[in-house]
Amino acid sequence: MNIYHHNKPFDLELGGSLPELTIAYHTYGTLSPERDNVVWVCHALTANSDVADWWPHTVEKGRFLDPEKYFIICANILGSCYGTTGPLHKNPLTGKGYYRSFPRYTMRDIVRVHQILADALGIEKIKILVGSSVGGFQAIEWAVEQPERFGKLILIATDAKASPWTIAIDETQRMAILADPTYVLDIPEGGSEGLATARALALLTYRGAKGYNLTQQDPDDLYTDPIHRACTYQRYQGQKLVRRFDAYSYLAILQSFDTHNVGRGRGGIPAALSKITMPTMVVGITTDIVFIPEEMRELADLIPNAQYFEIDSPFGHDGFLVEADLLNTLLIPFMTDDEP
Amino acid sequence: MNIYHHNKPFDLELGGSLPELTIAYHTYGTLSPERDNVVWVCHALTANSDVADWWPHTVEKGRFLDPEKYFIICANILGSCYGTTGPLHKNPLTGKGYYRSFPRYTMRDIVRVHQILADALGIEKIKILVGSSVGGFQAIEWAVEQPERFGKLILIATDAKASPWTIAIDETQRMAILADPTYVLDIPEGGSEGLATARALALLTYRGAKGYNLTQQDPDDLYTDPIHRACTYQRYQGQKLVRRFDAYSYLAILQSFDTHNVGRGRGGIPAALSKITMPTMVVGITTDIVFIPEEMRELADLIPNAQYFEIDSPFGHDGFLVEADLLNTLLIPFMTDDEP
Repeated sequence: MNIYHHNKPFDLELGGSLPELTIAYHTYGTLSPERDNVVWVCHALTANSDVADWWPHTVEKGRFLDPEKYFIICANILGSCYGTTGPLHKNPLTGKGYYRSFPRYTMRDIVRVHQILADALGIEKIKILVGSSVGGFQAIEWAVEQPERFGKLILIATDAKASPWTIAIDETQRMAILADPTYVLDIPEGGSEGLATARALALLTYRGAKGYNLTQQDPDDLYTDPIHRACTYQRYQGQKLVRRFDAYSYLAILQSFDTHNVGRGRGGIPAALSKITMPTMVVGITTDIVFIPEEMRELADLIPNAQYFEIDSPFGHDGFLVEADLLNTLLIPFMTDDEP
Repeated sequence: MNIYHHNKPFDLELGGSLPELTIAYHTYGTLSPERDNVVWVCHALTANSDVADWWPHTVEKGRFLDPEKYFIICANILGSCYGTTGPLHKNPLTGKGYYRSFPRYTMRDIVRVHQILADALGIEKIKILVGSSVGGFQAIEWAVEQPERFGKLILIATDAKASPWTIAIDETQRMAILADPTYVLDIPEGGSEGLATARALALLTYRGAKGYNLTQQDPDDLYTDPIHRACTYQRYQGQKLVRRFDAYSYLAILQSFDTHNVGRGRGGIPAALSKITMPTMVVGITTDIVFIPEEMRELADLIPNAQYFEIDSPFGHDGFLVEADLLNTLLIPFMTDDEP
């Protein structure tokens, strides 16, 4: 992991500022002398800058994030707990951790932090910008803001704005965290039980009926044991996140996601998306209940130079993490169709 | 509302017994002299015995639950808070409310309570048995247990067992309630905040993406206000349930739902469903993410004399409550095809 220190105040879209920024990022492969082989990956909610860690079988030779070919960059998002400035960092003005006092920020702030890093690294042109899920929120926002910067755009299971549906999912997770009486303690483990419930809830939406029914069946004729496999799974997944994340960062990120709307102040979503003139691939997943295929198709229709593809997977929204083989088959021809 | 007192111990499938039973029920219309016009409705999770209250535009002249034609019965389920014996009732053996000490019970216990009431009312034959959602759990279980009792069966948005998916949804709601430190107080309002979160979560699954995106859009270009309409909706719905339900009954009912499996001890689900020989109509809803159409179709395939229909509705699982007009069109011909 690399760290870039931006030792200047960073003004936030909703007012206020952060006195300084730390930006954590990973790179894979080698930047070509012409600086023309950059692939920028935007990560989702609880992921980090280490794409090879959270997106298995993608950052490998012969795969669509081939480090022998591309210079791949991923930056941890603002407000996260994986290196970039977030609620568990020390506020240099007070000498104490931010916790609940971390200022509200937007999807556009997240993207401006990416821009600061790209500029600092001397990366002017980005060959391909890739975003899945709320990584796609960032990718769409960035592509609208600086369309000339990107050669191609890949959007997987995402949207041009946080829909009422995704906001309702986030709000319910907030209810779970804020109901935890330890959340107000402003300590690293504050709100952990609420966070576990929030995560279990989020997983429901990531997997959906088919995903659970495929992987969490009980042995036949389970009788008196009330501990179904699906119960153990939910509790395990909740605790698993608690071990690697914190409630303050989680809540800060959810809040920023809900601000996502590329049409805001730009004459609406169709007008904003019309600025995305680069070749774009939009990928939906048949069983995704977070970003349903019908709405993914509508998104593709509003991007001038976009093609729409659908991955047939039983794993719902998580299909984007699970179906690396299908993604390879789909993405490599699109990524290389302008190469000799 | 009518009350039937069963002044004998009621043995439970998982062991133990309740010293007595109170059964709350509603009836609409008049029992024919031949006692051959009974329609029995099984209600879902947080509903009650007053079908006209929770299922709008169904218990009306000319609709599929026509009280001028049928004698309609609905009983509040075991463990609920609408009259039938449940956690907030007084345990006659201790003189105190049951709360968390209410014994574990199963879907089969719920159905045996229905049987006790039907027998007590002298209702031998039931012309049509109707169940939606977890009301359908009861209807399927009862139809398998006493197939000769029913003339026809109508199953809407339901399943032959609690799937890993529905159990995972229930478990996540349990996590929310059990995380509420007031739940252990064993007072009527104990666990209320957890219950609100659980309800908000359940509503996500009842409505799905299309339902929310149709009804909870923000005004255009919402900017600095973090209170999205979808947020207000989730919190309002949580509090609305808290005003009319309690966490102890909710948890007891969820637990019983998870025991649902008509195949248990009967040689598996296909063998059990093969006992349902009466004409059966199975109805799925296109956007239902709880009981997905594909699985509803599989259910219909396993019932010997079943036909499958699908309601095209954007309201997800809640479509069964919202689309009374579509249900009428579908159900009335099926319910009356043997009438002169």
